[in-house]
Amino acid sequence: MTMMKAAVFVEPGRIELADKPIPPVGPNDALVRITTTTICGTDVHILKGEYPVAPGLTIGHEPVGIIEKLGSNVQGYQEGQRVIAGAICPSFTSYACQDGHPAQDGGCACHGYKPMGGWRFGNTIDGTQAEYVLVPDAQANLAPVPDGLTDEQVLMCPDIMSTGFAGAEAANIKIGDIVAVFAQGPIGLCATAGARLRGASLIIAVDGVDERLAIARRLGADVTLNFRKVDVVDEILKLTGGRGVDASIEALGLQSTFEHALRVLKPGGTLSSLGVYSGDLTIPLGAFHAGLGDNRIVTSLCPGGKERMRRLLNVVASGRVDLGALVTHEYTLDKIVDAYDLFSHQRDGVLKVAIKPF
Amino acid sequence: MTMMKAAVFVEPGRIELADKPIPPVGPNDALVRITTTTICGTDVHILKGEYPVAPGLTIGHEPVGIIEKLGSNVQGYQEGQRVIAGAICPSFTSYACQDGHPAQDGGCACHGYKPMGGWRFGNTIDGTQAEYVLVPDAQANLAPVPDGLTDEQVLMCPDIMSTGFAGAEAANIKIGDIVAVFAQGPIGLCATAGARLRGASLIIAVDGVDERLAIARRLGADVTLNFRKVDVVDEILKLTGGRGVDASIEALGLQSTFEHALRVLKPGGTLSSLGVYSGDLTIPLGAFHAGLGDNRIVTSLCPGGKERMRRLLNVVASGRVDLGALVTHEYTLDKIVDAYDLFSHQRDGVLKVAIKPF
Amino acid sequence: MTMMKAAVFVEPGRIELADKPIPPVGPNDALVRITTTTICGTDVHILKGEYPVAPGLTIGHEPVGIIEKLGSNVQGYQEGQRVIAGAICPSFTSYACQDGHPAQDGGCACHGYKPMGGWRFGNTIDGTQAEYVLVPDAQANLAPVPDGLTDEQVLMCPDIMSTGFAGAEAANIKIGDIVAVFAQGPIGLCATAGARLRGASLIIAVDGVDERLAIARRLGADVTLNFRKVDVVDEILKLTGGRGVDASIEALGLQSTFEHALRVLKPGGTLSSLGVYSGDLTIPLGAFHAGLGDNRIVTSLCPGGKERMRRLLNVVASGRVDLGALVTHEYTLDKIVDAYDLFSHQRDGVLKVAIKPF
Amino acid sequence: MTMMKAAVFVEPGRIELADKPIPPVGPNDALVRITTTTICGTDVHILKGEYPVAPGLTIGHEPVGIIEKLGSNVQGYQEGQRVIAGAICPSFTSYACQDGHPAQDGGCACHGYKPMGGWRFGNTIDGTQAEYVLVPDAQANLAPVPDGLTDEQVLMCPDIMSTGFAGAEAANIKIGDIVAVFAQGPIGLCATAGARLRGASLIIAVDGVDERLAIARRLGADVTLNFRKVDVVDEILKLTGGRGVDASIEALGLQSTFEHALRVLKPGGTLSSLGVYSGDLTIPLGAFHAGLGDNRIVTSLCPGGKERMRRLLNVVASGRVDLGALVTHEYTLDKIVDAYDLFSHQRDGVLKVAIKPF
Repeated sequence: MTMMKAAVFVEPGRIELADKPIPPVGPNDALVRITTTTICGTDVHILKGEYPVAPGLTIGHEPVGIIEKLGSNVQGYQEGQRVIAGAICPSFTSYACQDGHPAQDGGCACHGYKPMGGWRFGNTIDGTQAEYVLVPDAQANLAPVPDGLTDEQVLMCPDIMSTGFAGAEAANIKIGDIVAVFAQGPIGLCATAGARLRGASLIIAVDGVDERLAIARRLGADVTLNFRKVDVVDEILKLTGGRGVDASIEALGLQSTFEHALRVLKPGGTLSSLGVYSGDLTIPLGAFHAGLGDNRIVTSLCPGGKERMRRLLNVVASGRVDLGALVTHEYTLDKIVDAYDLFSHQRDGVLKVAIKPF
Repeated sequence: MTMMKAAVFVEPGRIELADKPIPPVGPNDALVRITTTTICGTDVHILKGEYPVAPGLTIGHEPVGIIEKLGSNVQGYQEGQRVIAGAICPSFTSYACQDGHPAQDGGCACHGYKPMGGWRFGNTIDGTQAEYVLVPDAQANLAPVPDGLTDEQVLMCPDIMSTGFAGAEAANIKIGDIVAVFAQGPIGLCATAGARLRGASLIIAVDGVDERLAIARRLGADVTLNFRKVDVVDEILKLTGGRGVDASIEALGLQSTFEHALRVLKPGGTLSSLGVYSGDLTIPLGAFHAGLGDNRIVTSLCPGGKERMRRLLNVVASGRVDLGALVTHEYTLDKIVDAYDLFSHQRDGVLKVAIKPF
Repeated sequence: MTMMKAAVFVEPGRIELADKPIPPVGPNDALVRITTTTICGTDVHILKGEYPVAPGLTIGHEPVGIIEKLGSNVQGYQEGQRVIAGAICPSFTSYACQDGHPAQDGGCACHGYKPMGGWRFGNTIDGTQAEYVLVPDAQANLAPVPDGLTDEQVLMCPDIMSTGFAGAEAANIKIGDIVAVFAQGPIGLCATAGARLRGASLIIAVDGVDERLAIARRLGADVTLNFRKVDVVDEILKLTGGRGVDASIEALGLQSTFEHALRVLKPGGTLSSLGVYSGDLTIPLGAFHAGLGDNRIVTSLCPGGKERMRRLLNVVASGRVDLGALVTHEYTLDKIVDAYDLFSHQRDGVLKVAIKPF
Repeated sequence: MTMMKAAVFVEPGRIELADKPIPPVGPNDALVRITTTTICGTDVHILKGEYPVAPGLTIGHEPVGIIEKLGSNVQGYQEGQRVIAGAICPSFTSYACQDGHPAQDGGCACHGYKPMGGWRFGNTIDGTQAEYVLVPDAQANLAPVPDGLTDEQVLMCPDIMSTGFAGAEAANIKIGDIVAVFAQGPIGLCATAGARLRGASLIIAVDGVDERLAIARRLGADVTLNFRKVDVVDEILKLTGGRGVDASIEALGLQSTFEHALRVLKPGGTLSSLGVYSGDLTIPLGAFHAGLGDNRIVTSLCPGGKERMRRLLNVVASGRVDLGALVTHEYTLDKIVDAYDLFSHQRDGVLKVAIKPF
């Protein structure tokens, strides 16, 4: 067998299933047979043409699968082993990687950084919505799945969980902190779970959909606020006695969520931003204390690499966080166009869709 | 003697010398006889009515002087001792202070923070442009001046040096870093000196006045750029081989300097902002990498307290940094209206003005 | 009423109840009527004469009570308010405090530090095992107790919980970490709970008493090891596949626990030490990788101050951690000699004893 | 030409020049023709048999040279380019590397760490005291030398400078700090220079050789103490008014230097240890404040990788630090046995010896 099915970007508005050759395996690569993958909000931006990729590219960046073939230099793994790889799969050899910014991997040839350069699957190389995916720099990126965990249990590790937790980690949360998380989609829910994991003692989750707020409560929120029903800035200031929150996490990418996150923040506090913005942002002078508030605004792209995946898999294996509730639908790869339709229109309470190639 | 001369805010456009009673000394206070003080850019905002303070308030927040009288609870000092105190003189007992944000001192009565609450001299209580100033929470704020240092040598410690260095400290500079500092007024010059002190190996100083750039070179800049002559963003990207800087420091408070500081920043880098802004800020989408660049934007208000002052005095005493060149003019207190006139119009190459009460 | 009952140190082997005058209240003090206090392991060292204090000193450093009288400068509190104060109650105005080390408060008169200088109650000033205690620097140290919490629920905040959590905080725990905690007395149990709060995904608790290990499981341990039954170093290396733990916490103060904590530590890992040692320590060359293992050994004294207490009270109020199980016995103040007898001999499964003055 | 000269370890007491085949170049390797290398104190330990390596191994880990041949996967370099590589040359793909501890590189096959695993040259693979060296994981480890720098100027970057600076970096130095550096051999001298680069305002250098103390002054020390002439602990406590130093750096590896470094340290301070110890260490109870002093003891192995080298090369290129004075002697490779003799007996004021293959 030399051909495989893959979901490829054709043109804005069209992602279709196509036949592609199974790629050859170079010395530092691994070929992974996908057993489960999923669709990300970013993929919908690609579908709509809002984020440009090359026509013909296979989409998707969240792989769960089995090693089919290892490159000659890749050691410590076996063919047949169950693995995941991060959505962001850097080389780990570049200047940017060694400088602590692997997600901004600048590649090999210069002293530099490439914004989001660590994101390759479904962006600059073929992705995971296919029967097989070629993992580059496999030595640095393949993470074995512990026995006893299902594909669904680990499906959030490559992107959603890594990103959401990163939002909590970058927020510099201390034991006893008050944290507000704006938007409770999959990433915001993981940020809520992450804030709980870091020791926040009062977590306020904000969204416009009550079902999502209910999941937020199960994942660690103490208080939930529906922005369609209350003025969230007023409410949070009231809840904190006018003090504001120690950290706020933005998990959507809108001016309104960014601005709310800033307006509820104490002087000295951190705004941790995870959203993908689609226009210039405005920082209101007052909420920014004219630049004198000792505040921090921090952005994070999903951390990748096998060590990050290993840690997240440990969190799942230990039962600390159960993201099962996030996988609301399942499709086979041949129905992926339907899955995109459901997911992009956010129908039927969808949070995440499991895609099974067979 | 029970009365003293003091420069008070009368109304927008008018700061005048007035007679005021020398204040009584409470148990936690110290009365300091001013030997030298100075005028800050913030004071000019007050003069113009752009930053509101109560009519009748004594202006100024940069004291060098001699302890005239100590409160009954203040220990470890002697009357007659030469001291300085930080422009920001927090209580150090409030929740915000103990949480690591003394400049945002929320006072005693709640769990909270007050933006810039640590700034009291010439803002919420009488300031230093007078013959005497009352230092509250003196135990926490009086710092003895080492023998052998002149008033002029230590005059920058309370504000300019503490703020400028804080810009470098918040920029998270590592040995070998490339740092750009935008604006070379007194604070920007100290940020340049601070970047050098933290181990940056290439420091690029930007301003529109060649005289200031010349001082920047003396204080540690390797390269200087006059924004009136070159496109500084292009030039810095060229100087760094397209890589961008590890950290950029904004030291003025304009959209343009903020934006330049962001545009030259590598993904993963830190923008350390010191400026006092006067309007909403815009974050350009591209320079912000749509929120995915692992960047940090950090703001700092001048750190205060006697431990901070002690460290800065040590830096001066050791000869590491010589800010003598910053004091370009000297006036007596009775001529302070003239000094404001010179300083607010930035005439005669003025950087900082020493004010001597006698 | 001008006299009160207090447990005072008489001589090695003797702590007795005595009559003492209720102290006068200075401008920065507060007089607190104790409603519950407890006995600490340190108090037993004092009783045995192993830690010297002045004869006649009132012992105890863990206060829960009601404000009886406030000094003239103490603002934002009311008489009659329920409060706690940290076991360590620093001035927060000294150089050491402003330098980030309030527990090593050097006092006012010099540039320096005094080891453990922030610990005053029952050490350098009269303590809490009495009907009343005078809280110095009350503005910085009094923390109101939220409504609805019992004395027993907050009794661990001043010392045990603050210290145990500090052990986890200093261990630099990251999400997904493996952490081992050596000794599960009250402080070790709180370190275990603290490791859980910080996001460790595998927590290994070690002790020689199965009842304590059972409590450790309830507070967050995933695996418990009784050192009387297994070789804990072997077992932990086995559990981690030879990798070692990311962080180990020592919570007793013996060469053996310190050494075990080092032997199970990965290169690059942190040993967080809480124990009070009674002799020189030996660092074995091999476990220390001859000084080339990129390891950190960190010691922590109990953090104090009202902001720390506020955060710990929030953790209790939110239900994140329930330390009720630690208070195993209750005595009235007039029976405190019996309580010392029980506690110092560790009879009847005692963990902590609540002392009620009335 | 297929053979080369190399200095190999024969047996304890014997390192000799031998003929060896020039190694073949794998896909991730680079073959570098050495132009200058040097002898390290560690090499002397190997010579004496105190640190065991395989007989026949080529010694040396400090390469300056020219790329002779690149592996098929190594991109962004050209044959003929001048480069250095760190003494520690990790894979950067292992779990330990991605966890922030590349020097403890655990290799590929497990979740683990190998103490000093990143050190390969002259330890687990053939080293640099030869005509050619094979650099593994070349993409991650080759750093181009900026034009205009001599071999001698960059010869310290791979080990001495990286290690010494790491000692200062791990010491957590802040602007205005007081730092003591114990031992002024090549690494201690670089620690002194590093402390200066990080902003220490009073640097106290300790050694027993006045010539080294004179160099320490040139590299940044403010005060030098000869331990043969004064009691350094007393003297440092006197110099700091009894306060102690903010950080102390141990740069030799003896109980006495370690102990002095602890005894002069303030509570809350950091002891940064660089020495290679040869026996168990004792921590004196009093100097350790019985474990309650909020102290940190941190060990560092030389950081490697091309990004680290790039930064150090920048420091050299900018003229911030001039280590020229450290290269006191020069030998050709065929006289390396003589060079070992001189260096191991520390004759003729030797600090570092340049070895030139031709």
